[in-house]
Amino acid sequence: MTGDDRRDGGAVRIGLLGCGTVGQAVVRTLIDGGSTIERASGHRLEVAKVLVRDPTKERPGIDPSLITTDPGDILDDPTVSIVVEVMGGLDPTLDHLQRAIARGASVVTANKQLLSRHGPELLQAAEAAGAELRFEASACAAIPVIKVLRESLLAAEITQITGIVNGTTNFILTEMSRGGLSYDEALARAQQLGYAEADPTEDVNGADAAAKMAILSSIAFHSRVRIDDVPHEGIDRLQAEDMDHAGSLGFVVKLLGVARLLNGSVSVRVYPALVPRGHRLAAIEGPDNAVLLESRATREIMLVGPGAGGDETASAVVADVLSILGTHQGSFLHNALVDAGRTVAPPGAVESAFYVRMAVDDRPGVLARVASIFGDAELSIRTVVQSGTGDQARLVLVLHSGPEARMEEALERVRALDEVRGEPVMLRVLGSGAGGDAR
Amino acid sequence: MTGDDRRDGGAVRIGLLGCGTVGQAVVRTLIDGGSTIERASGHRLEVAKVLVRDPTKERPGIDPSLITTDPGDILDDPTVSIVVEVMGGLDPTLDHLQRAIARGASVVTANKQLLSRHGPELLQAAEAAGAELRFEASACAAIPVIKVLRESLLAAEITQITGIVNGTTNFILTEMSRGGLSYDEALARAQQLGYAEADPTEDVNGADAAAKMAILSSIAFHSRVRIDDVPHEGIDRLQAEDMDHAGSLGFVVKLLGVARLLNGSVSVRVYPALVPRGHRLAAIEGPDNAVLLESRATREIMLVGPGAGGDETASAVVADVLSILGTHQGSFLHNALVDAGRTVAPPGAVESAFYVRMAVDDRPGVLARVASIFGDAELSIRTVVQSGTGDQARLVLVLHSGPEARMEEALERVRALDEVRGEPVMLRVLGSGAGGDAR
Repeated sequence: MTGDDRRDGGAVRIGLLGCGTVGQAVVRTLIDGGSTIERASGHRLEVAKVLVRDPTKERPGIDPSLITTDPGDILDDPTVSIVVEVMGGLDPTLDHLQRAIARGASVVTANKQLLSRHGPELLQAAEAAGAELRFEASACAAIPVIKVLRESLLAAEITQITGIVNGTTNFILTEMSRGGLSYDEALARAQQLGYAEADPTEDVNGADAAAKMAILSSIAFHSRVRIDDVPHEGIDRLQAEDMDHAGSLGFVVKLLGVARLLNGSVSVRVYPALVPRGHRLAAIEGPDNAVLLESRATREIMLVGPGAGGDETASAVVADVLSILGTHQGSFLHNALVDAGRTVAPPGAVESAFYVRMAVDDRPGVLARVASIFGDAELSIRTVVQSGTGDQARLVLVLHSGPEARMEEALERVRALDEVRGEPVMLRVLGSGAGGDAR
Repeated sequence: MTGDDRRDGGAVRIGLLGCGTVGQAVVRTLIDGGSTIERASGHRLEVAKVLVRDPTKERPGIDPSLITTDPGDILDDPTVSIVVEVMGGLDPTLDHLQRAIARGASVVTANKQLLSRHGPELLQAAEAAGAELRFEASACAAIPVIKVLRESLLAAEITQITGIVNGTTNFILTEMSRGGLSYDEALARAQQLGYAEADPTEDVNGADAAAKMAILSSIAFHSRVRIDDVPHEGIDRLQAEDMDHAGSLGFVVKLLGVARLLNGSVSVRVYPALVPRGHRLAAIEGPDNAVLLESRATREIMLVGPGAGGDETASAVVADVLSILGTHQGSFLHNALVDAGRTVAPPGAVESAFYVRMAVDDRPGVLARVASIFGDAELSIRTVVQSGTGDQARLVLVLHSGPEARMEEALERVRALDEVRGEPVMLRVLGSGAGGDAR
């Protein structure tokens, strides 16, 4: 189907099974992001129908005429070429997907339970029908670990996957370890902040992580690994004292999925483990996910990001839709690089926070004069450190965010001061995250 | 061309321009990994010819009959459908690639200088000819950042890219910061270990990072950003005292590429910057690369890995070849999941290192009895901590790597001891890297 829709000017019609948080985010992305998607990919995507159980429910921003309660409106409509499944569950979901695939529709699903149980059959059915089955959103939401395994590392012989693939438990463990909370307190906090469900069983007992590891290891090791093949232990028997013991021995505790090749067999398990504090997985905190992929040729590649969330999962679903349509024909890059033509911003307009270090004469009044120059330039000082004496006298300033052009002018004036010796060293300061200083 | 080669049983013929470290690694990967590639992707790849300057040079493992000094043997051979360019430079490389593209051959290149100067023209030529141009290896070697930007995040509106994209400078800065070395000492050490070239100019002055950021920001922001649009500062003017000042203020110094949208324009720059110690880029040490991709929907996704190396770069080149051939037809997953059939290993056979915590009676001899049980099981003890008194008496052990089955048996015996109260808690211990304990 690649490119055909572009040639005849028609839109690609997409049917949605389910319209919860993720489904609504998918519809929003397709509608609000429609022109971006078309410009970047060359494909116009259109929501054909949305299957729901309860048509009376409020769904802001979704055209009521798209809503249906009859699966056949999507599954049997030959103009719907891609079926997006975000309804979850096994029954009737499996039947729905098999029915869509049987008539040649491609399927994108976010359903890890289904995939980790029936992935091989569905893939086989898709191949027989000449359809595609994509499922990036079924493991780690927007982190593109399945695409990387399927495509970028296809020829690499993966030897081990080590993952923090459940954000709920990583949040709980982080709180227990940093905040000294008990397991129950940390779980309550996770529920309060929306990182854990009212019934957190599947997350805390490791079953959710086991489903994701079954999917990832199937792809990585070219094997059929199902959730029942993945022994899993949860974090519910951990005590705060284990965090303390681990900490004093130089470790942090993480719920890990570990999949590796063992004499040609595949071993996949999920368990809480002690991770050395210097290991890169030890630094993954809060609700984040991370997957470390090892092979001889590529050594260790790690992907990190939010492993859950409506918009994050929807992003992976839409990426799968575009992958099915084929974005590898070069044409989107033509659109992108040749037509889009964003201009390049002049450096002076950029805002940054700054570090300035200068050698100064060791006498009173230097700081006042330097400070007044930055004050005149409306660059506000966050920290000043004066250190050393005599030839070693130094003035180090960290300034809050401001335009580069003003910093250049201020530095020019500072350089001209009698008390400043040699060339001041100016470095920019990266913000500590969204909303921080200039980045 | 997708799939045709499979149908007629013919191999995909690949011509190589250049045969240095990366070129030799590409040939090795295609030959040694041939059966893996064919099984996983359904494509049989064949090296048609290898263009070199000096045919008399020793090239271990490369069939001398493949060697040619005539570019026409590759560029004008209609049976060569993919040209891999790993010769570097601009002239005559640009002409070679244009000649190959003009006759409809697809091109894979690792050449960041060429891409960051002539990427847009080459992409336009490829589109006009119905050919593909892929260049994953031109930025960050095996880290699949270009594929993720082009495909997984195609519909995401990227707002910022922040990258440590030069391993040489990151190694030097890590050494200066951790080892207290001067810039010159750290550079000498990098050269000794092969992380810096004899002439490190392009790395230390930021030009190499600027070329990579031009490529990444072109893709991410759908724009034409060329290396000349990227102001860059290097690390050569940094002093050890700047590392000290930064450290005492809670920062580490990194050479960053920063690209972001600024009122609809694109701002791309490379400079040494202070990064807050808690920021995830602060943890990237030694020769590693990391790229942080931000968008509203996906928040922060980070990719980390080795950003250089022959095998790493070759892995990206081969991945690009397979992407051109189209691995998205589902068939490789059929091959993989349905035919490969690796068995699942029994958990008892897996080796791990272990942490065991137990409540014990507060009296002499407990440790000896517990230790002798683990000794009988040939599980060797790395650390023992006895803590608390009375009801709070605890024995915590960390054991070196051994088979899980033996640990289960030992735990059974420990549980049966009179002095051990309640259920011992056993956690596994992740190795701190290759060659460490069980992972």
